[in-house]
Amino acid sequence: MRDIYHDELDAIGALLLDMTNRVAVAMSRATQALLDADLSSAESVVTDDAQVDALRADLESRTFLLMAQQQPVASDLRLLFTSLHVAADLERMGDLALHIAKIARMRYPEVAVPAPVRDVIAQMGDVAQSLVGKVAEVIDGRDVALAQAIEVEDDSMDALRRKLFLILLSDSWTEGTETAIDMTLIGRYYERYADHAVSVARRFVFIVTGTMPDRIAAIV
Amino acid sequence: MRDIYHDELDAIGALLLDMTNRVAVAMSRATQALLDADLSSAESVVTDDAQVDALRADLESRTFLLMAQQQPVASDLRLLFTSLHVAADLERMGDLALHIAKIARMRYPEVAVPAPVRDVIAQMGDVAQSLVGKVAEVIDGRDVALAQAIEVEDDSMDALRRKLFLILLSDSWTEGTETAIDMTLIGRYYERYADHAVSVARRFVFIVTGTMPDRIAAIV
Repeated sequence: MRDIYHDELDAIGALLLDMTNRVAVAMSRATQALLDADLSSAESVVTDDAQVDALRADLESRTFLLMAQQQPVASDLRLLFTSLHVAADLERMGDLALHIAKIARMRYPEVAVPAPVRDVIAQMGDVAQSLVGKVAEVIDGRDVALAQAIEVEDDSMDALRRKLFLILLSDSWTEGTETAIDMTLIGRYYERYADHAVSVARRFVFIVTGTMPDRIAAIV
Repeated sequence: MRDIYHDELDAIGALLLDMTNRVAVAMSRATQALLDADLSSAESVVTDDAQVDALRADLESRTFLLMAQQQPVASDLRLLFTSLHVAADLERMGDLALHIAKIARMRYPEVAVPAPVRDVIAQMGDVAQSLVGKVAEVIDGRDVALAQAIEVEDDSMDALRRKLFLILLSDSWTEGTETAIDMTLIGRYYERYADHAVSVARRFVFIVTGTMPDRIAAIV
């Protein structure tokens, strides 16, 4: 039984990595859809989100069965405990990419993002990609140092969101209320995607060190 | 040991109910702060949020220890599993009330909500209170029928949010971009608060029936 048990633990780790790669692709395509009015990218994000949801459901079922049947020791239990939280964060990241893709699709054939905020939204997309790439590395290698770099990138996402608001509120904003509402929501979605990436990184620090970082309560 | 074990299970249930009551008060005060520029209500939401975060941390620690030390049977394990998810939802509901309170505080001594959207925001506050009250009843009594009523109220929250957007986008909107951005975010926060209430209700259906409702993947 112990071999099947450790195969199952490995399978859960692989599911988390698979989810991470999928929500990375989803956000990349959502950003492309947004900036280039790329309808097929938007549609693929909408279609593929169900796979992320299914992976999370699979992970929860496997975790429950492992806990019920195998009485894992404390270190394995901690991994399973963390996996549940991380899977929830990853599914939510997929949902946020989906929300962005849907705005792109709703505005098609127009480009959803007007010229004055194109740079700042593109940068938010870049930070999101960099963050989720680091999350994959953290999950794959459990690199605690990388978790620190993720915190720094989260701060730069917050700075970009403030920059976005300044543009929306400047006298030179002439794109109207509807576009301002779209950009407000898009900014919120990128920021939350980054928040969840940070949450995942912190949870893996917990696996490695057994101690949650102090700032955890503010975000998880 | 079994008596201490069941005391601990009861304590976890009591923690969830305590969290629910606190996030109900938080949202009530946040709405009041928003509609009446009530600074002391806003401040109390900001101050009290740390207690909700602490309750969740306490619940997670207790759950982890129970799982590690007592090897709960499947039905108790399911309760613990659900409690973890529900605690996460409740903490997030507290955060969303906090975000609303902070907008009220930022606009003080002005009233954050202008006349054209006052009714719809007040109704969103009413639906939020009704929802969280039902969540408390579900947690306390595990009433599966009530979970259905929660779904219906969530639909009415979504309808209110669409109504809010129609007002923001109408030609008669003269409150400017900054207020439109505030209202967009506030609408989002109420909607998410309702989503998490639905998530809690669905999780408790899972405890009672052992089956997740079909719509779960769309929201949890």
